[in-house]
Amino acid sequence: MELKEIGEFGLIKRLSRGAVVRKENIIRSIGDDAAVFRAYPEEVILFTTDMLVERIHFLKKATSGYNLGYKSLAVNLSDIAAMGGNAREAFCSIAIPKAVDIEFVENIYEGMKTLAAEFNVNLLGGDTTSSKIDLIINVSVIGSAPENEILYRNRAQCGDKIFTTGFLGESRAGCFLITNDIQACFKGCETLKASHFLPRPYLKEGKFLARQKGVHAAIDISDGLSSDLEHILEESGKGAQIFADTIPISQDLKNFCRQFSFDPVQFALSGGEDYALLFTVSSDNAEKVKKNYEKIFPRPIYELGVITETNNMELVFSDGTVQQILPKGWDHFLTVETRASDL
Amino acid sequence: MELKEIGEFGLIKRLSRGAVVRKENIIRSIGDDAAVFRAYPEEVILFTTDMLVERIHFLKKATSGYNLGYKSLAVNLSDIAAMGGNAREAFCSIAIPKAVDIEFVENIYEGMKTLAAEFNVNLLGGDTTSSKIDLIINVSVIGSAPENEILYRNRAQCGDKIFTTGFLGESRAGCFLITNDIQACFKGCETLKASHFLPRPYLKEGKFLARQKGVHAAIDISDGLSSDLEHILEESGKGAQIFADTIPISQDLKNFCRQFSFDPVQFALSGGEDYALLFTVSSDNAEKVKKNYEKIFPRPIYELGVITETNNMELVFSDGTVQQILPKGWDHFLTVETRASDL
Repeated sequence: MELKEIGEFGLIKRLSRGAVVRKENIIRSIGDDAAVFRAYPEEVILFTTDMLVERIHFLKKATSGYNLGYKSLAVNLSDIAAMGGNAREAFCSIAIPKAVDIEFVENIYEGMKTLAAEFNVNLLGGDTTSSKIDLIINVSVIGSAPENEILYRNRAQCGDKIFTTGFLGESRAGCFLITNDIQACFKGCETLKASHFLPRPYLKEGKFLARQKGVHAAIDISDGLSSDLEHILEESGKGAQIFADTIPISQDLKNFCRQFSFDPVQFALSGGEDYALLFTVSSDNAEKVKKNYEKIFPRPIYELGVITETNNMELVFSDGTVQQILPKGWDHFLTVETRASDL
Repeated sequence: MELKEIGEFGLIKRLSRGAVVRKENIIRSIGDDAAVFRAYPEEVILFTTDMLVERIHFLKKATSGYNLGYKSLAVNLSDIAAMGGNAREAFCSIAIPKAVDIEFVENIYEGMKTLAAEFNVNLLGGDTTSSKIDLIINVSVIGSAPENEILYRNRAQCGDKIFTTGFLGESRAGCFLITNDIQACFKGCETLKASHFLPRPYLKEGKFLARQKGVHAAIDISDGLSSDLEHILEESGKGAQIFADTIPISQDLKNFCRQFSFDPVQFALSGGEDYALLFTVSSDNAEKVKKNYEKIFPRPIYELGVITETNNMELVFSDGTVQQILPKGWDHFLTVETRASDL
């Protein structure tokens, strides 16, 4: 069905079905000039927003509406996770070219609503408009957290151990496979694609970490390990050493790198879109945090380096050689990488 | 200068200068995964978002960066005004094609920051990305208001008098002049263009109205008088009569309509982008509200109709003839009008 058959307001009615899953603080959702809701008492507000642009972040032919909607929300939830917050209300602005049919748009919202419901997040409104060529999705998420339980980028301290909550480089490998239309040719091929399409926001994990003693700084890995660690270092005025051997690389990524002759360490360093959390913990609390974490969550956390007083980011190999790491990830205007822009 | 010379993070640094004008409730602005701020105690949260798409809402060659930025924020502030709220924090996502230079982008932010500062609104962050062809701007605004001082669309009551806070149809006339590249050819030509480029959000007026006894329903006129009144009627389950003679039409619009042989009443009815407030007041309070309003604000409010129990929207002429009004304004997917899509 084409959008012109039901119009903008008909579309909004369809999309808003089942969008509110938690009603207790909602006064007015879709259907007025603004959404109206109560703040969470004793908590401060977190706000994040991310825009996904066709032919920059995705190729329409290479993704389903569902995956696209899921990811548009997931990348925002991941930002709230990196602050240690609870995600509360989401809003979506979408610009739809004529060539896109209603079913694709409905699937986008299905993907968003499924993920939103899983994390008890309301989809409270947004904006719908047309577009000449590219499909554009902008999602905003409002979260909340007690003021003294928030994780910032700028709190890393010298001697902190650096951890991630998941494997790195998988999403980039998945993107490579999708972009080049490569079908299953080794074990783990489909898992890597799923890592790229359906990144899991570490919301519960972020919340947990924000409450642990000694957890100092956090960020989610959206641009790449080296880029995002650089954000922590710059904001904290610190340096870091990453131990090449300890970067968490999955067997799937190893298989992939063997198949296509990539260096797994470099791949993981500049991966991007993994949406694992990267965080630092004081050395005297690190062991306890790891133990507590692994009691609650099914997957481990990975220690991969240490915060230093230098201004450098260094990669240390097991033979003792040290390499300077240049932050290499995603910059929309300096693009040398070929990653999402080709997907 | 081109964006690739400074990169995404260089751009963000430039754009964020002077973006925070009210610091008392801000814990963290630009530079982390999410902005962090305190809610206003005793108030609930309002949230609105609007996306402006090149070649749908504007033509880059026909606008300045400043005007574009100003309007991107103004349309959102207008939504907060229509709820009777205070605008607090704004966020901007922008997708920038290669062909756009830094100066244009900086001017967009100048326009936003100037308007934001005027209304004590912080520009707290957002997202920057690239785009293949079209420039896309998505602004979100968080406002607040006491829960019992909010204006909704769905509260119009039978017998309510209908008012607007400003002239109608001017923005559409301005758009026509800009689109067709018509230079000053009658008195008021430039005023009409300014109405289109720099709509003034009625924030103080909305706040005032929300506190007045008898003001029932409100909306801002973004799609057009007939379309936006229809939203009030549909949400309230009511009808309305509009008195053709009382629709506020400026001398500038009369001059314009004479020059280009348009019917001023029809032009004002389906105008759109006026961003005046449209509101209803119980008949026994109408006179007092008008008097109070005009004591405080330099411009009058205009009474133009009455809410009825029917399901119809009717236009009543001075000779007593009655015409059915069909909501005719902006629908992004049913477009018959040529308005912003051609600007």
